[in-house]
Amino acid sequence: MPPQQRGQESREHILQVAGTCFAENGYDGTGVAEICRRAEMSKGAFYHHFPSKQALFLELLNRWLDGLEGQFFAIRAEAPSVAAGLLRMTEMVRQILTDAGGQLSIFIEFLSQARREPAVWEATIAPYRRYRALFAEMIAEGVREGSLQPVDPELAAGALVSLGVGVLLQSLLDGDGADWGQVTRTGVQMLIRSDSQSGA
Amino acid sequence: MPPQQRGQESREHILQVAGTCFAENGYDGTGVAEICRRAEMSKGAFYHHFPSKQALFLELLNRWLDGLEGQFFAIRAEAPSVAAGLLRMTEMVRQILTDAGGQLSIFIEFLSQARREPAVWEATIAPYRRYRALFAEMIAEGVREGSLQPVDPELAAGALVSLGVGVLLQSLLDGDGADWGQVTRTGVQMLIRSDSQSGA
Repeated sequence: MPPQQRGQESREHILQVAGTCFAENGYDGTGVAEICRRAEMSKGAFYHHFPSKQALFLELLNRWLDGLEGQFFAIRAEAPSVAAGLLRMTEMVRQILTDAGGQLSIFIEFLSQARREPAVWEATIAPYRRYRALFAEMIAEGVREGSLQPVDPELAAGALVSLGVGVLLQSLLDGDGADWGQVTRTGVQMLIRSDSQSGA
Repeated sequence: MPPQQRGQESREHILQVAGTCFAENGYDGTGVAEICRRAEMSKGAFYHHFPSKQALFLELLNRWLDGLEGQFFAIRAEAPSVAAGLLRMTEMVRQILTDAGGQLSIFIEFLSQARREPAVWEATIAPYRRYRALFAEMIAEGVREGSLQPVDPELAAGALVSLGVGVLLQSLLDGDGADWGQVTRTGVQMLIRSDSQSGA
């Protein structure tokens, strides 16, 4: 295997192991030493790939968010209307909740760190703002094309993202407490009711 | 002042100081010693009131939640219809977001701790479940009385609570990013659209 590929693989390995450590013991409860031990790697090798634990943490966050955003854009590009696209996105949320399991719980660690570390805070709020802007644009288009009822796009996008964030959080805390995929779908259907009534 | 009243006052004082400490430095970053120092109180006095830091933390959580629930019940009792009650509750959320400020940020500390401490976890999910049950009941009544469109009450309540949780979280992280009170109102209006259209 060429050295560059091996380097990439060990970088991926560190990210994966660190994700598990953060999920199990939290950000504060996870040291670089512990990550190295479980990744069977020296500290020197770790710092070759990441300047700090925080840098690694931010990369985990950004990867997850970029992946989500990529899926959103793909759905939006393929859906016949904005309303139909939004409903398909709820299926994606359901899939995320089912697949990601324990990994997702580092989401709460990001929040907790965001309050104390400005770099994490910026990295954490940026995607919320990006998602609100993305949905505001979609909703404005949906109102123009007539698949959504007239509504303030910024405020409606804020409500939509809030619904998603709230579902994510509760599903992490209380996965068995409700059918969270179904809650998301119902919420989005209610938010875009004009469409489900017209059968589009 | 009678001793009992003085005891109650010093207990309140500890709770207030601890809330500030948790908000500033997180749960893990706050020790009993620090709380005692800032409350100008001995450790003996602290442990006279609370068996542990966790017990104090849970009391803060429960007080906040009981206060919210009391307000919800009062609004529900006075509102002419379920739909009208839900809209008035959004005003209450707006008030909470404006008033509580820094104190609210311990909300994220509760979440972070909930993942690791079973006692905190139980105390944290119980109110979400209680609120979902409370709103499910309200929504079922709203459908019966005709102020809400027919909908599955459990799922709709899940969506409503998720909207609230998502707004709370984003307003904590990014208070200036949107008019969160207005986002809540828009979201609830969209969720209960039948009512705002009929002008009830």
